[in-house]
Amino acid sequence: MTGSTTRSVSIVLFDGFELLDVFGPVELLSRLPDSVDVLMLGPQEGPVRSSQGTEVVATASHRDAPEPDIVMVPGGMGTRSLACDERFLTWLREWASTATIVTSVCTGSALLAAAGLLDGYRATSNKLAFEWVAGHGTDVEWAPSARWVHDRDRWTSSGVAAGMDMTGALLTYLFGREEAERAAREIELGLHTDPDRDPFAVAHGLE
Amino acid sequence: MTGSTTRSVSIVLFDGFELLDVFGPVELLSRLPDSVDVLMLGPQEGPVRSSQGTEVVATASHRDAPEPDIVMVPGGMGTRSLACDERFLTWLREWASTATIVTSVCTGSALLAAAGLLDGYRATSNKLAFEWVAGHGTDVEWAPSARWVHDRDRWTSSGVAAGMDMTGALLTYLFGREEAERAAREIELGLHTDPDRDPFAVAHGLE
Repeated sequence: MTGSTTRSVSIVLFDGFELLDVFGPVELLSRLPDSVDVLMLGPQEGPVRSSQGTEVVATASHRDAPEPDIVMVPGGMGTRSLACDERFLTWLREWASTATIVTSVCTGSALLAAAGLLDGYRATSNKLAFEWVAGHGTDVEWAPSARWVHDRDRWTSSGVAAGMDMTGALLTYLFGREEAERAAREIELGLHTDPDRDPFAVAHGLE
Repeated sequence: MTGSTTRSVSIVLFDGFELLDVFGPVELLSRLPDSVDVLMLGPQEGPVRSSQGTEVVATASHRDAPEPDIVMVPGGMGTRSLACDERFLTWLREWASTATIVTSVCTGSALLAAAGLLDGYRATSNKLAFEWVAGHGTDVEWAPSARWVHDRDRWTSSGVAAGMDMTGALLTYLFGREEAERAAREIELGLHTDPDRDPFAVAHGLE
């Protein structure tokens, strides 16, 4: 934590991260500049290539990351190789286990699960990649129909755009509904506030 | 254009651009990789600092930008100074006037208007900054209540998140409803498809 009232959100970028998984939540978080600091971590300090090819600049490397308060792990095609990368998973497990809250967007939950960070928890993920994601972790209660799942200190969202709804709920949890609604209103975003309403589970045949 | 069937979207980054104005649309556009190329232009090649502080890497400078097909201008705090920057506006006017389609998200329409690119058109913008934006241009029919406005070869959206809905409509216009719906479904985004339904015009007291 960076102060008594400021919360710090450390975002774990990696080669092949999904752009909106990161910048949907970051846009909402940035609407509370006095309450939230956002930190972009990469495999190394400097540009990190997204799934889409666009590069985003990390200000610190995973290895040099300060002790985390809130962790956010996005999804993206890069999760496919990272979910088998023992060095990355060991770092993620050790570093994130000291966090107050651990969150993921989309297939980021495969990385949390592969690192053992979801064992004993209920969690969800992207609906198109659900079967692949749900093969990770040894004791995860995977929810095939959920916009997001909040289970104690773990928050996992469904695919890409669902990360914004989860972040709205996280802001409500941390700072109250009024602040979350103000943030969403400022960016003209209609937040979905029911975690159990998942139209895309239906669309993808998981219900 | 980069090919007979591929459309090219040139995104005009600048110091203080708004992250979600760019990456909401880019996420949708990237779901049609065989049909859409996205190009990130900056004041210079290399990192461009967003409103939120995060830097994104431009692959070409404004001055070195290839002739555009589709132009997209985001909003953000950086529009405040750029709307008075004659050198930038002259470049934008000359470069974008050769485009097939010119679009903006949020306060990006202030830049289009200041460059004269909206004269004779109907347009909209962010609802919190609406009065400021509507002071630009000499003959623009500003719509205070619209999620987005499509007037011939100009598309302008309301604030931040509205850029995703406009992009969904643009994809429908270019490639058909099925492709646009597939893109939105893949990223689990519930698109708003009615340009005239603007809940935030009401929220901000503009209706």
